[in-house]
Amino acid sequence: MKAETRLHYTLADIMNLEKEQKINLINALSGFKSVALIGSVDAEKKINLAIFNSFVHVGSIPPCIGFISRPDIEERHTVPNILKTGYYTINHISEETYLQAHQTSARYPKDTSEFDAVILTPQFISNFPAPFVKESSIQIGLQFMEQVPIKINGTILIIGEIQHVCFPADCLCEDGFLDIEKAGTLTCSGLDSYHRTSRIQRLSYAKPFEVLKNIPLDYKI
Amino acid sequence: MKAETRLHYTLADIMNLEKEQKINLINALSGFKSVALIGSVDAEKKINLAIFNSFVHVGSIPPCIGFISRPDIEERHTVPNILKTGYYTINHISEETYLQAHQTSARYPKDTSEFDAVILTPQFISNFPAPFVKESSIQIGLQFMEQVPIKINGTILIIGEIQHVCFPADCLCEDGFLDIEKAGTLTCSGLDSYHRTSRIQRLSYAKPFEVLKNIPLDYKI
Repeated sequence: MKAETRLHYTLADIMNLEKEQKINLINALSGFKSVALIGSVDAEKKINLAIFNSFVHVGSIPPCIGFISRPDIEERHTVPNILKTGYYTINHISEETYLQAHQTSARYPKDTSEFDAVILTPQFISNFPAPFVKESSIQIGLQFMEQVPIKINGTILIIGEIQHVCFPADCLCEDGFLDIEKAGTLTCSGLDSYHRTSRIQRLSYAKPFEVLKNIPLDYKI
Repeated sequence: MKAETRLHYTLADIMNLEKEQKINLINALSGFKSVALIGSVDAEKKINLAIFNSFVHVGSIPPCIGFISRPDIEERHTVPNILKTGYYTINHISEETYLQAHQTSARYPKDTSEFDAVILTPQFISNFPAPFVKESSIQIGLQFMEQVPIKINGTILIIGEIQHVCFPADCLCEDGFLDIEKAGTLTCSGLDSYHRTSRIQRLSYAKPFEVLKNIPLDYKI
């Protein structure tokens, strides 16, 4: 299985790489990433949209999602907006929207709405204060819950509670599983590589000395 | 684009779901996840292997990866081992190993090595104290750096610094990007759905008013 040539880098080898190589390598090592657009508003209700690729499931009870933000938050607008207004949205991206989504990472001036700059449509749902992305098939509205400082590099983990979620009805299974692949959600690796997915299978809950079973996708509709 | 029927769940709707439905839905909403095996040892050098799906890139300088662990760490062995010995490994999973990887989540007794139970091979590299998974194409050795408590639900974010990384030489690009898809790394969604990936493209660094370009994969060998 491993007749191929393998490389072994130590921490010293990694530290000796050029900065771009180091960043590309380390960003790839954490595996495939969740990538989505965060919509937010500032105190003057100016809307903002930015791509993030560091989402993580934090817990189901209460239902919440986290994401890691770099320390230079003053240069960007998403985290200050979230801390100021308390609300934001997470919008999955698909093959139809990933180019616009990636383009939101360009450093537009503060008075430019990335929705306008990349041509995506802000959508307001149920009086929720932050804009959703109309083109996203899975849209989540969150209320800010906790800001967790990470000492070793000054990044922060921002955690929000899910207040609203909108999704295609035909992607929901009887057991609550939402088929995000069927909804067209993409994944990314490194900083800039976008990927479609292809399901192998869902696996049953593992127990000692029991053979795993395939869980058929039992859509509600 | 959205002629399909859409569902809108509020927080109240989510809270009214059965527990299994709630857990399956919320675990899917955070998007595609990084999934990998963590190898560790206890103070008596007994080896342990467990699957996690909550890895997140924390930073490149220093090079580090985080993962979220549930609060019931006493029932499991990975986090106590990491806190006790200071070292652990992260091993990507592929189509050849995902069944064994998923099976490590079964609650084996403390004196059972999951390596033996699921038939994966522990590999020790460069005197690193924790076991790697020989069958994994991307193997990472980490030193524990920081334990970040999350107040809202008692979970913790464990962060480690990358000390060693072993990978197939033909997956490394000139700019440091590691092609984890070529290495066979899988992604997962929800708690139990495993997926292959298929690259659309790598995109250039975004700048205002510039058209994004495809970055060709420029392998070193």
